[in-house]
Amino acid sequence: MRLAVIGAGAVGRSVLDLAGEYGHSVVAIADSESAAIDPEGLDSETVLARKDEEGRVGSADPDEAIDAEYDALVEATPTTLGDAEPGFSHALGALERDRHVVLANKGPVAERYGDLRAAERASTGEVRFEATVGGAIPAISTIEDFGPDHITAARGVLNGTANFILTRMAAEGLDYEHVLAEAQDLGVAEADPSFDVQGTDAALKCVIMANVLSGNGEFTLADAEVEGIEDVPGSALELAAEDGRTVRLIGEATREGVRVGPRLIPEHGTLAVSGTRNIVQIETTHAGRLNLSGRGAGGPETATAVLSDVGRLG
Amino acid sequence: MRLAVIGAGAVGRSVLDLAGEYGHSVVAIADSESAAIDPEGLDSETVLARKDEEGRVGSADPDEAIDAEYDALVEATPTTLGDAEPGFSHALGALERDRHVVLANKGPVAERYGDLRAAERASTGEVRFEATVGGAIPAISTIEDFGPDHITAARGVLNGTANFILTRMAAEGLDYEHVLAEAQDLGVAEADPSFDVQGTDAALKCVIMANVLSGNGEFTLADAEVEGIEDVPGSALELAAEDGRTVRLIGEATREGVRVGPRLIPEHGTLAVSGTRNIVQIETTHAGRLNLSGRGAGGPETATAVLSDVGRLG
Repeated sequence: MRLAVIGAGAVGRSVLDLAGEYGHSVVAIADSESAAIDPEGLDSETVLARKDEEGRVGSADPDEAIDAEYDALVEATPTTLGDAEPGFSHALGALERDRHVVLANKGPVAERYGDLRAAERASTGEVRFEATVGGAIPAISTIEDFGPDHITAARGVLNGTANFILTRMAAEGLDYEHVLAEAQDLGVAEADPSFDVQGTDAALKCVIMANVLSGNGEFTLADAEVEGIEDVPGSALELAAEDGRTVRLIGEATREGVRVGPRLIPEHGTLAVSGTRNIVQIETTHAGRLNLSGRGAGGPETATAVLSDVGRLG
Repeated sequence: MRLAVIGAGAVGRSVLDLAGEYGHSVVAIADSESAAIDPEGLDSETVLARKDEEGRVGSADPDEAIDAEYDALVEATPTTLGDAEPGFSHALGALERDRHVVLANKGPVAERYGDLRAAERASTGEVRFEATVGGAIPAISTIEDFGPDHITAARGVLNGTANFILTRMAAEGLDYEHVLAEAQDLGVAEADPSFDVQGTDAALKCVIMANVLSGNGEFTLADAEVEGIEDVPGSALELAAEDGRTVRLIGEATREGVRVGPRLIPEHGTLAVSGTRNIVQIETTHAGRLNLSGRGAGGPETATAVLSDVGRLG
C-alpha cells in the first residue's frame, strides 16, 4: 500500500524506515513545518537525513501530504486531549477522501471515538488503531477477533515509565523522586513526566479499550477515574514486599467505564511485569483470561503495530 | 456465516453451542456415524441431546455434511498423524467446493501443510487454523499480522497435561507416576497419556508454527527433535528449585526446524506458567519479545478460536 505519514517523531520515522520491509511505500511524510512527497515512494534515508540536518522533512507545505495519492494515512503526531486536534482533522481529511486511516495518536480514539466512527461510516476508508494501546502488543486486534461482546474487561500495565519507576522503587528501596530523576537521566521519563506518572497515558489507553468494548464511543478521559503514582511512598512498596506483593499502576476498562490507579498485586503474578514492559489481560466469556505482554512503547515497536494494521486493511 | 461442523467431540459441540452467539449458524454437523443437516440452522440443544441419548447427532450419512450448503467447514475430528486422514480429505472436499476451512484438527496443518496450501490455492476458499495452537491464545493470527518474515522464533509451553504434571511435581515434591495418576483421576490426563507426555502434541503445534514461519510447509512431525517428560525425575525439580529454577516442557519453532523437550527455566519467569495454562513467546525482529498466555485447551476455549477464525474469513 501507499502510505502518507503525518508526524516525523520516533513513530513516524520508524514507519518510514520499516514500510519497505513490509511491502509498502511511503509516498508522503509531513512534520509540523513541511512535507516531502514522491508518488514513486520516498527514500527513507534521504528524508531522515534532511530532517536531522535541516529540521524539516521536505520543502512542501505540510497540508499537501493529506492531499497526496495514498491508500492509507498514518497519523503519528503527538497525542492531544479535548478536541484531539490536529490529529482528528488529519484523520477526517483522509476519510473524506475515502482513504484508510491508521492511528498511532491516541487522541482521536480516546477523546472523539464517536465522531471518528461516524466519519468512518461516511467513508469507504477504514480506521485502525492497534498502535495506540500497548505498543507492539496486539490488544485491539485480539479484542476485535474475539468480538467485544465476548469480553467483559481488559486491564493491565499500560505505561512503561510508571512501571519502570515502581519496579526500581521496589527493587532498590528508593523513593519516587530519586527514581524519577534516574528515569529522566536514562531517557525513560520525559522532562515533564506528568502525562505518564499521573496516569493520564494509561487512562487514555483504557478509554480506547472501553470504547471498543462498548462499541458506541461514549467514553473520554473525563469519564475515567484516575490516580497516578506520585504519592506512592517507598514504604508502601516495602510493606507490600514483606507480604509477597508489589505495587503496579493498573488500568481497567469495562463497558461501564475506566479506572486507573496504583494497586497491590502478587509479586510474582502475571501482572507484575518489570521495567518498561506492558501487559494487557483480557477477560473472555468462554475462554478464560488471556495475557498479552511485550514492549509497550518505542519507535520500531509502535511502527510494527502500525504496519500490522496496514496489513489488516481490507 | 453458515458452518458445517465435522466432529462432535468437545470442540465440535462447543462450536455448535456458541456459533449463534457469534452471529453464525450451524447448518450441518457430523460425527463418525451420522450427520444432522438443516439449511435453516440446527438447534444445538436438540442435536446435543440426541448425541447424548442416542450416541449420534442425526440420521443422515456423515458424508452428506461435506455436501451441504455452508460457507465454512469446521474440521474438529481427532488429530491423526501421517496422512492426517480423514481430516485432510474433509478439508480438501470443502476447498474443492470453493468453501472456507477452519481447522481445530492439527493433523492436516502439521503433517500435510504443503498439500493443504496447494488445495487452498486452487480454491476460492481460505484455510485458517488458529485453534490448532494454544487453544484460545491468538498465536497464529499474531504471527500472521506481524508477518512471518518479521519473526525469528516462536516457543512456549504448549501442552497443558505435561505442564500440569511438572507443576504438581515441583509444588508437591512428588514423582512422575504419582502425579500422572492424579492427573488421570482429575481428567487432565487421558488414560493413554503418551501423546501429551511424550511431547508429540507440543511438537505438532511447533511444526505448525514452523510451517507458518517458513511459509513452504516443509516440516512434519518426523522432522521434529522431541523429548517428553516421562524421564524427568522428581529430584531434578528439587535441584532446580534450590537454584530458583524449575522445569517445563518447552517447544521451539524456527525457520530451521522444531525442538521440544524439558528445559530448565527461571522459577518466576514468564515461561513458568502453572497448571494447564499455555504460553507462546514470539521473537520479533523490530518489536522485541511478545508473550501470549491463556487456556491452551478445552471445548469452549478452542471453539472460541474457531469462531474468531470464522470472523476473520474474507
